[in-house]
Amino acid sequence: MKKYNVAILGATGAVGMEMLKVLQERDFPIQELRLLASSRSAGKVIETEKYGSVTIQEAKDSAFEGMNIVLGAAENDISKKFVDAIKASGAAYIDNSSAFRMDPEVPLVVPEINPEDAFTHKGVIANPNCSTIITLVAINAINRLSPIEALYASTYQAVSGAGIKGPKEMYEQSRNILEGKDIECSTFPYQIAYNLLPQIGGFGENGYTSEEMKLQNEGRKILHLPELKVSCTCVRVPVERSHSISANVITKDRLELEDVRKAISEAAGCKLKDDTEKNIYPMPIETSDQDLVYVGRIRRDLVCENGINLWCCGDQVRKGAATNAVQIAQLLISRD
Amino acid sequence: MKKYNVAILGATGAVGMEMLKVLQERDFPIQELRLLASSRSAGKVIETEKYGSVTIQEAKDSAFEGMNIVLGAAENDISKKFVDAIKASGAAYIDNSSAFRMDPEVPLVVPEINPEDAFTHKGVIANPNCSTIITLVAINAINRLSPIEALYASTYQAVSGAGIKGPKEMYEQSRNILEGKDIECSTFPYQIAYNLLPQIGGFGENGYTSEEMKLQNEGRKILHLPELKVSCTCVRVPVERSHSISANVITKDRLELEDVRKAISEAAGCKLKDDTEKNIYPMPIETSDQDLVYVGRIRRDLVCENGINLWCCGDQVRKGAATNAVQIAQLLISRD
Repeated sequence: MKKYNVAILGATGAVGMEMLKVLQERDFPIQELRLLASSRSAGKVIETEKYGSVTIQEAKDSAFEGMNIVLGAAENDISKKFVDAIKASGAAYIDNSSAFRMDPEVPLVVPEINPEDAFTHKGVIANPNCSTIITLVAINAINRLSPIEALYASTYQAVSGAGIKGPKEMYEQSRNILEGKDIECSTFPYQIAYNLLPQIGGFGENGYTSEEMKLQNEGRKILHLPELKVSCTCVRVPVERSHSISANVITKDRLELEDVRKAISEAAGCKLKDDTEKNIYPMPIETSDQDLVYVGRIRRDLVCENGINLWCCGDQVRKGAATNAVQIAQLLISRD
Repeated sequence: MKKYNVAILGATGAVGMEMLKVLQERDFPIQELRLLASSRSAGKVIETEKYGSVTIQEAKDSAFEGMNIVLGAAENDISKKFVDAIKASGAAYIDNSSAFRMDPEVPLVVPEINPEDAFTHKGVIANPNCSTIITLVAINAINRLSPIEALYASTYQAVSGAGIKGPKEMYEQSRNILEGKDIECSTFPYQIAYNLLPQIGGFGENGYTSEEMKLQNEGRKILHLPELKVSCTCVRVPVERSHSISANVITKDRLELEDVRKAISEAAGCKLKDDTEKNIYPMPIETSDQDLVYVGRIRRDLVCENGINLWCCGDQVRKGAATNAVQIAQLLISRD
């Protein structure tokens, strides 16, 4: 079996560390593993189960030489800084930042939805936004039954979406509130413990946040539905891990609920959790640390007769980021 | 000034205690205050700021004699048990349970929206569901600009909506999780700390919960919009107090955002909190323990051109229950 030289750019962050975990879980055939981070982390040694001790190297242009695949878990500015060096190295760059997602030259891929797009790449493949991946995996089976024309979504996003510091801040605030002490805010603009923040990302001119617009913009590209209309509200909630989404999906044709349930139960990447008689529905504590998107509360939209309402939860660090990127890498090597 | 004999039925619960607080805050002109509860609580003495020491009496048919107004903060079965005795006493019964809300003989009143309906009562006036009140107060000004035809709503409901035991359970679970201990669930079917429960109330045949259907059923009656279509998803979130709602409001005519903002800023019961440049928007920790519904994130719906999206928060124990009931009582005596 062919083995590959794989680098993780931004290996010390929450997504980078999860990529390392998922590569090992999936027995990704690795010849050399290179973990790249800022000069601050360079020299630290990471003990891995399958690849032994790996010393973190400083991310710089020369660090990508000889690599076959680079998994990007860095912010937009870092991704932009190194993209030319990665391309020059000949590696396929699977980038989790949002820097290149809307570039028409760059495929934006969810392997369960548009795997073929991955093979059109010219060096860079973008990994979509976390809540976008989770929502689209949940509704992809509906789109195959009848094209989705519009989508209303309200999200309930976990604090780990803001990186390792998110859960730390939430739990510290929780502890201080329980002990009657003052709290500090640094990762989030306001208290997040026992509170809700209806803002993720910066605000655009139309009043939507960057996070809210991703579902429409990225959704159109991934689903190949250039006319898809999406109205989204993104809210940060005091949950450690796994994003949840309340979605109203409006399709071209009227669908039968049983067909929708069957399609979702058979859809790649989905697990149907929908039995109201037994109070069974997706919850974020149950979807954390695994790769499936749980879907439930499937019912007819009461506003629009061609609409389906549902509730879904998925681990945004895994399927919403690290796992999806590793799946893209697996897809690429599957045709070698 | 005329004074009234007022009873609170279910005085020891979260809503009953809040009614007592709101009566005092609003200097409600009380001659005799009667606090009624189960035989278990009878005999206990409640110290009040304005009405001195009040001994709790057992709720029984004879307990309502001589009362002018009865504020009901009891469950449906208790409300149904005593409604005839209350009517026979001649008192106006302002009931917070859902027992009579959809009875065509019983007005369902939010004083900022349909005050005139209160005066058609035949002994009983129903206080609407908490998340219904908060949502409708937020969107009432939009309905006055152009009739609302449809509404999508996803709720983020605080644990105190389940009574005094709700916050207790959430904080106990939080503490145990922070200390690495096992948790117990009794008020909620699953862990609520750091989790989300997409179920409030029991499930109906159409897959919606009782709580979700209230927004459509009660909304139609309160807004006098018998054709109003509402698709709602209700979710319990780990927030102590104040419900939040992500709403998409579809009106007959296309509205200008500036007109909507102006109307909401001037609407009774609302406070506009909408300045994205300064990261100002409603949050549940800011709306607790006061009576206004905060409204923000006002923007154009990207699916429907006659739609407006918004986010609102309000204290469901106060405006969603106790305050609204006391306001109805104030309305009734205003014409004496």
